[in-house]
This record gives sequence, C-alpha cells and structure tokens, in this order.
Amino acid sequence: MDNATFRDFGKAAIDFVADYMENIRDCDVLPSVKPGYLFDLLPPELPEKAENWQDILKDINRVIKPGITHWQSPNMHAYYPTACSFPSIVGDMISSGFSVIGFSWICSPACTELEVVVMDWLAKFLKLPQHFLHSSEGPGGGIIQGTASEAVLVAMLSAREQTVRRMKQTHPELSESDIRGKLVAYSSDQSNSCIERDALLAAVPIRLLSTGDDLVLTGDILEQAINEDIAKGFIPIICIATVGTTGTCAFDDLPSLGKVCNERGIWLHVDAAYAGAALALEEYKELRNGFELVDSLNFNLHKFLLVHFDCSAMWLKDANKVVDSFNVDRIYLKHKYEGQTQIPDFRHWQIPLGRRFRALKVWITLRTYGAEGLKAHIRKHITLAQRFEKYVLADPRFELITERTLGLVCFRPKGSNKYTTDLLNSLVERKKIYLIQATYRDKNFLRFVVCGMDPKPEDIDYAWREIRDQYSMLINEEKLLTLGKTDMGAIVKQLSTDIKISANKDKEKVK
Amino acid sequence: MDNATFRDFGKAAIDFVADYMENIRDCDVLPSVKPGYLFDLLPPELPEKAENWQDILKDINRVIKPGITHWQSPNMHAYYPTACSFPSIVGDMISSGFSVIGFSWICSPACTELEVVVMDWLAKFLKLPQHFLHSSEGPGGGIIQGTASEAVLVAMLSAREQTVRRMKQTHPELSESDIRGKLVAYSSDQSNSCIERDALLAAVPIRLLSTGDDLVLTGDILEQAINEDIAKGFIPIICIATVGTTGTCAFDDLPSLGKVCNERGIWLHVDAAYAGAALALEEYKELRNGFELVDSLNFNLHKFLLVHFDCSAMWLKDANKVVDSFNVDRIYLKHKYEGQTQIPDFRHWQIPLGRRFRALKVWITLRTYGAEGLKAHIRKHITLAQRFEKYVLADPRFELITERTLGLVCFRPKGSNKYTTDLLNSLVERKKIYLIQATYRDKNFLRFVVCGMDPKPEDIDYAWREIRDQYSMLINEEKLLTLGKTDMGAIVKQLSTDIKISANKDKEKVK
Repeated sequence: MDNATFRDFGKAAIDFVADYMENIRDCDVLPSVKPGYLFDLLPPELPEKAENWQDILKDINRVIKPGITHWQSPNMHAYYPTACSFPSIVGDMISSGFSVIGFSWICSPACTELEVVVMDWLAKFLKLPQHFLHSSEGPGGGIIQGTASEAVLVAMLSAREQTVRRMKQTHPELSESDIRGKLVAYSSDQSNSCIERDALLAAVPIRLLSTGDDLVLTGDILEQAINEDIAKGFIPIICIATVGTTGTCAFDDLPSLGKVCNERGIWLHVDAAYAGAALALEEYKELRNGFELVDSLNFNLHKFLLVHFDCSAMWLKDANKVVDSFNVDRIYLKHKYEGQTQIPDFRHWQIPLGRRFRALKVWITLRTYGAEGLKAHIRKHITLAQRFEKYVLADPRFELITERTLGLVCFRPKGSNKYTTDLLNSLVERKKIYLIQATYRDKNFLRFVVCGMDPKPEDIDYAWREIRDQYSMLINEEKLLTLGKTDMGAIVKQLSTDIKISANKDKEKVK
Repeated sequence: MDNATFRDFGKAAIDFVADYMENIRDCDVLPSVKPGYLFDLLPPELPEKAENWQDILKDINRVIKPGITHWQSPNMHAYYPTACSFPSIVGDMISSGFSVIGFSWICSPACTELEVVVMDWLAKFLKLPQHFLHSSEGPGGGIIQGTASEAVLVAMLSAREQTVRRMKQTHPELSESDIRGKLVAYSSDQSNSCIERDALLAAVPIRLLSTGDDLVLTGDILEQAINEDIAKGFIPIICIATVGTTGTCAFDDLPSLGKVCNERGIWLHVDAAYAGAALALEEYKELRNGFELVDSLNFNLHKFLLVHFDCSAMWLKDANKVVDSFNVDRIYLKHKYEGQTQIPDFRHWQIPLGRRFRALKVWITLRTYGAEGLKAHIRKHITLAQRFEKYVLADPRFELITERTLGLVCFRPKGSNKYTTDLLNSLVERKKIYLIQATYRDKNFLRFVVCGMDPKPEDIDYAWREIRDQYSMLINEEKLLTLGKTDMGAIVKQLSTDIKISANKDKEKVK
C-alpha cells in the first residue's frame, strides 16, 4: 500500500470510527450472532491476490460489526468500564506509525523517557507516596504494564525470587527446591480470578482468605493465616490486597495489612485496577491511607482513565528487586548508556522482552483532558451510578446488596435467587443492555457498572426502564402461570399499569 | 474531545504518519539526544487544564521525534526487522475504535472467531501440519500472543504443569515440591535471551546446550544432556528449539530433536520468531521438516510479516494441555456458549486475562497483500540481503562469519576483534545506519539485517558505502598513528583513493 492510498484509507477509517461512536446507541449492545457465524462468511484460505481497502472496509461492516459486543456503548454495564477516548486512539495510531520496540533506552529514548514522565505525572495526580516517583532519590518508579494480571505476576515472581535468595543466605542448609516448596501467597476470596491464576503460573500456592460480611481483607485475618502457616513450616512471601474488588468494589484495609506485612517482611501488592483512579479525588482521600506501606501497586488506565487497553500502570517502591530477579543480559541488548540509574531499562521490569510505545497514548490523553478533565470524568461515572442507585432505592421490589461504590451498583430483585437469574437472562436475551451477575453470601446479584466512552444521564434512565419493565414482565408472567387463562386480560392490563406507576415514581425520585 | 474534533485530529495524525514515512530517509536512524533530554522539555506535573490537539501534535515533532530511533527507516539494520505496514496501522486503529476486550466469546464473537480464521489462514500459508488447525478434528489450534517471550513462557508453564500432574499420578510417593525441584528444560546457547528469562520466571532450571561449529542444536546433543540429567534424578520437561537464532539465524535440527522429544515424552517448542515466515516459500520447504513432531511453535508477524508489534502467532498441537494448566474460572467469566470446543476461550491460552482485538490488523494486512504479496515481501528481504552479501564478498578486507540466511548477513573486518568494535562504534557515532554486534566462537561480528517498512536496493548500497568508507577511514587513521606526522599528506591522498577503488569494485560486482 502506497503513501497516498494510506492517506485515503486512514482518513476513511477515522470517519468509520467517528461514525461508529456517533451512532453507537443504535446498535444492540450484545450481538445477535450464533457461535461460528463468522466461519461461513470468510473464505477458508487467505486470498492469493491483494484486495483493495474499499472492499475490506465494507467487510468490516458486513462481517465484523455484527459480531461486536459494544463495550463503548453507554448500554454496556458489565464487568468494569474499558476506557476509550479519541485522543487515546489517535495517540496509539501515531505510536503504530513510529513502530519502535522500546526494550532499552537506545531503542528509542523518547519511548523510555516519556514513560518515566507520564508515570511520575500519574503518581503525583493520584497523590502516591513520594518514593514511587522516578524523580525521587530512591530506587522506586512506575512502568506501564499490559494488564493487571501481568503487574500482579511481576510482583509475585519478584517476591518469590527475593525470598528464595534471602532464605538461601540465612538458611544455607535448605536446598532451593526445599525453599520453593514452602512458599505461600495470600489474597482475599474477593480478589480477581487473575490473582489465583498468577499464583498458578508462579507455582506458588495462594490462600484466598475469607473476608467478613464487609468483604474486606484486614490485617487480623492475614496475621492469623500467616501464624498458622509459619507454624506449619511455610514461608509467606506476598499478600495481594485489592482496592476495588471485582464483585462489589470492596476496599481491603491497607493500613492494617501494611502493618502486618512490614513487620513480617512480606511483600504487599495492591491491585487497584478499577478504583485506583479515585485516589486523585479529594473526596476519596481516605483511600490513600496505607499506600505508604505498600511495596507495589497497579491501576488500569484502561478502566477508568480514558486510555484504551492495554495500559496498566504499576509502581514499585524498590524496582531493583524486580530488575535483580529477572535480568539475564546478553551482548545484543547492551548500549553505551546502560546502567545509568535514572533511565530505567523497562524490559527488566516486565514479563515480555519487547514493548510498545504506550506512553504516547497516555501522554496525549492526559494533556487533552488535563487534571481537571480527568477528575471530571471519574466524577461523572460516580454521579451516574448515584442516579441509578436512586432508581433502585425508589423501587420497593429491588434491594442493594452493598453500598454503591464509585461507578458500581450491586442490586437484585428481593427474594429468591431465581428472580435475579431470570431477570438477567431476560435482559441478555433482549440485548438492549448488558450486565452480569455475581454472588454475595449465597445471594446472586446484578452488577450495574457505568461504562462506555461517553455515558449520559439519559442512558442510565434507559437502562433502568429496561430493567424495571423486564422485571415487571417477568413477575406478571409468573402470576399468569399461577392463574387460569381466563385472567389473561386482567394481567395484561395490570402489566401496563405497573410500568406507568413505576415510570412516574422514577421521575419524582430522580428530580 | 468531540466527534468533529476527532475527525480533524485523526486525519491530521494520518497525514503526520504518512509524512513521517515519506521522509524517513531524511532522519539519522539513531537520535542525537542525551539521556534525560526529555525531562527538561516537559513540565514536572500533568497540566491542570485541557490542551488542544494542534499544540500536542506540534510537541510530537518538537519533543518526541528527536528521541525516536527510526525502526521503520531502511537504514535500520539492527536486531531483526520490526514489521509495520499501512494496512496494519489502520487495522489496529479500527480495533482501538471498537475497544473490546475479547477474553471470552460473548465479549465479542468477532474478536475470537476472526482470530480462529486468521490463525488457520496463516497455518495453511506456512504449510504447517494439519493438526495445528482449529478446523481440524483434534484439540489443536492457533492464538495470537503478544510476544515470543510470552509464547515460550506459555509452552514452558504448560509443560511444567502437565509433568507435575503426570508425575503425581505415576509417583504418588513424591511430593509436589519434590517433583518441581527436579524439573529441567533445554535450549541451545544460541537461543534468545527471553528463553533463559522465561525459565527463570517459570522457576525451571534451563540448560543452554553447547552447539557445534554450525551453531545447530541436534537430537544427539539433546539426548546426551537428557541421559546425564535423568541419571542425576532430574525430570526433563521441555526443549525449546530455535528456527532462526538471534545471533546468526541458525536452524536447529527439528527432525532429530523431534524424534528424541517424542520418544522421551518431552514437550518440543519451536521459537521461529524471525524465520517462521519463510516456511511459506517453496524454495525453503526443507525448513518444514520436523514440524510434524513439534508440540507448539511461535513466529512473529511483527518481525517479517507486515503486521506491527505486538503480534506473535502461536500454534499448539493440543491446546487442552494449556487450558487444563491455567483455567481458574469464576462466575463473572461465564457465558452460555462456554465449553463449545470449536470456539476457544483464548484467555485460557495466554498469560494475561484481557486481550486486544489483534486479529483485525492481521486480517486487514493479509487481505491487503494477499499470499502473493506476502511472499514477495519475504523474498524482497532475501534479495536485498544477497545484494549486501555480494558487497562483503567483493571486498577482500571483510569476511562472512556464517552463510547469509534470509535477511541476515553476519560479517566482520578480517583480523582482530578490535576492528569490528571500532567500526561499529564509528558507525553508531555517525548515526547514519544502525547495526549491532554479536560473538561467534570468540570472534566479534556485525549483524546486518534488512529492516524498515520499505527498504530498497539503493538503501543497501547506501549502507555498504557507509560501512566501507568508515572502515577505510579507520584503517587509515591507524596507519596515521603508526607513522610520523610528516606522512599526513600521503595518507589523506591514499584514503581518497581507497574509497574510490572500493566504490568502483562495488559497481562491478553488483551488476
């Protein structure tokens, strides 16, 4: 493809994305295709001859778009938000244009140095302790990892290797495999599945500790587990706390966990994938308590901070512990500035060797919004979730399962779990909005999360109407089944009344 | 940023990338900045107020571009090529526009299914054995990993977990940590540093076996190591062979390695990161020998196949061995089509949980070039390397260190290692072309690799002139140092003659 054709194709693709975003509310958020739909639409082999971009772009509409779950639609309320913004898209595209691999400073000084700059910007924006800054005296600093899973894995593997080395020095009578066989990690039963999986990858058994009714992991719970394990001869290496659990957005108690970990010489990592962004807000400043005791943390810009996937910010109090664990240098990675401590070679801080110039999309996004705009974006999510919460509280048929936290509302129809599951099935079947369910102490509930690139109050109203109406239909269908067919007319009438009443109530409550 | 502004910014950025590529030969391939250059150019904190895209785009020219090492320049000859192409850039940008996270089928059917399609297309294009196809009967298939490091790590961790499980069944008297403490992996001393590092991450000791003068790992070498280790009580789990080593692009002997591994029940993984693409060429069909004996392999589309980083294709003969090793499902990942074997849930095949819609850039690139165009691209690299090889052979001051392979020429000035290192330093100092050195049996040599988005014969001629002239300068400077200052005029005269002679010889040989 020549330069002129790229200009045409590229600009047509920009318009495609702009049109897609502009009209995203016209699509059902969930696709209607059946598994395997695509296999019949495409040839079984790569075409022999070159094709032109106009045909390919048409096929994106014909073949791809029908199979997309529209994560950027404001009608997406499942999982946590996956950030996206126009400046991030453009920033990443320019990074593709440079297509550099930043595994060392000489491979593109701008790639490494801009990452140092934006990670310090972000650390200051979140009011993290000084020692996490590259520009501070110590060995701390931040790096952009791909995902939270990778950030947690890096922390876990570093804690593992550092412990093995320390134990070999203090207990020369133990073999390396004796030591490795005794290691144990901790997290809560509310932590993301990636943490359990990371422990599997690291070959370190992990105890997912039971939390209390508040779903919060505390220092007391951790200390009890540590004492039990030490008594059995195990060697605790790391605790992964969560700030904003996947199920209910609970916050583990960092001050007490930090105290225990620091006393025992155990690495404390915080997975703040979703909630980390809220550290920037003064009204959430109590969230910052305990971060001074933490060895490492990650939060996903690709969840709450307008930079699209993949972009998980990670900070380390002492990056040398990671570098020291993973560094296997060869001559072909050497360059003359190597070893200057103020310029990190980020390849030693991560799982893969190669790395994309991700700092560019971060830098362009942060500047486009400014600190003010970023805070406004987080607050918008919170305000919209509050709006939804009011709807739930105003409808006596529903209950909250925990307090709303940030952009997440956990709720359910009162009564049997069956109502929750039936409601979810009915919503997913209709494809207008997408939520998922989770479980709290044997109660199934729905997680309503504010998502999408540009959600508005009307989108929240739309979602609530959909939930309320579907639930009215469901319970009326149930009544129908328990009544004779002769009562059908009355039921249908009742159903319409329910919806109207409900609608009027909403107007009242929300205003 | 609103929709209309995005259209303007996006199109300006497309022009920025097009202009950059059009004028890439005007830039020195290596930047002139000093470490820390960027820290003075940017404010220490994220700006409070939003900035406009015009200012940001200006800053990309002012702040970022001077710190870029131009990997897409045809004057880049270091490492291996990092692919880039216009359709890949556009494809990735559209993927950013959708910004879906494809960790399960329901999260975007098109994301999973297009990956199945393009991985089968590629397997057929490379003439891989049938059992690597998703569309074959068995449990095999392909996945897009981020990097070769991750692909190798996935293979290593799966081999580790499968062995532990098998051993626990056959040797119930052994504890899990006993078993883990006995595991051992193999690769050659020529394999990429990421393999040694992956073993460190996996906590599996690896033996980097010495190869013969041909730098090829053979079944005999492996078998001897296995026998030694088994005699010592170790449990061999995996051999990572390389097709196209980083140093000299050597090909390990797959047929003999495969025979040994299959007999001993050891996982055989092939890292064909660079050379894998050549499997598509009939003139390289002998490269395909032995792939029928392989358990898994990876090759980087982001090296040779016009799709930009990150994009490492990996195939597994039995994907269930990976899924079985890593699967820790939770309720929030469930969907109603889960478990249908023809639609893989790729999150179980990889290290991170989240995943980008990378199949889109692959699909758009493959269609834009067609099988014909892709083969022509690989052959262009080979032809250009042959052109460079002829220059080296025609100059009696230089020698090849190994035969040219694909797009890599390994060469050096004859004599002491000092000449090689001095020449490299002088080239890097001038920044016109970028090469790196490596070592073969105590001899330092230079790796000349055909790289860049669109290299042409003239670029090869330019690189050779630069190398030749710099070397002439160097040896004349040396003469100068051994002579008295009075001979200066003669030396300068000689120097100009050297260059002219050399230039005339080239013209002769290449035509």
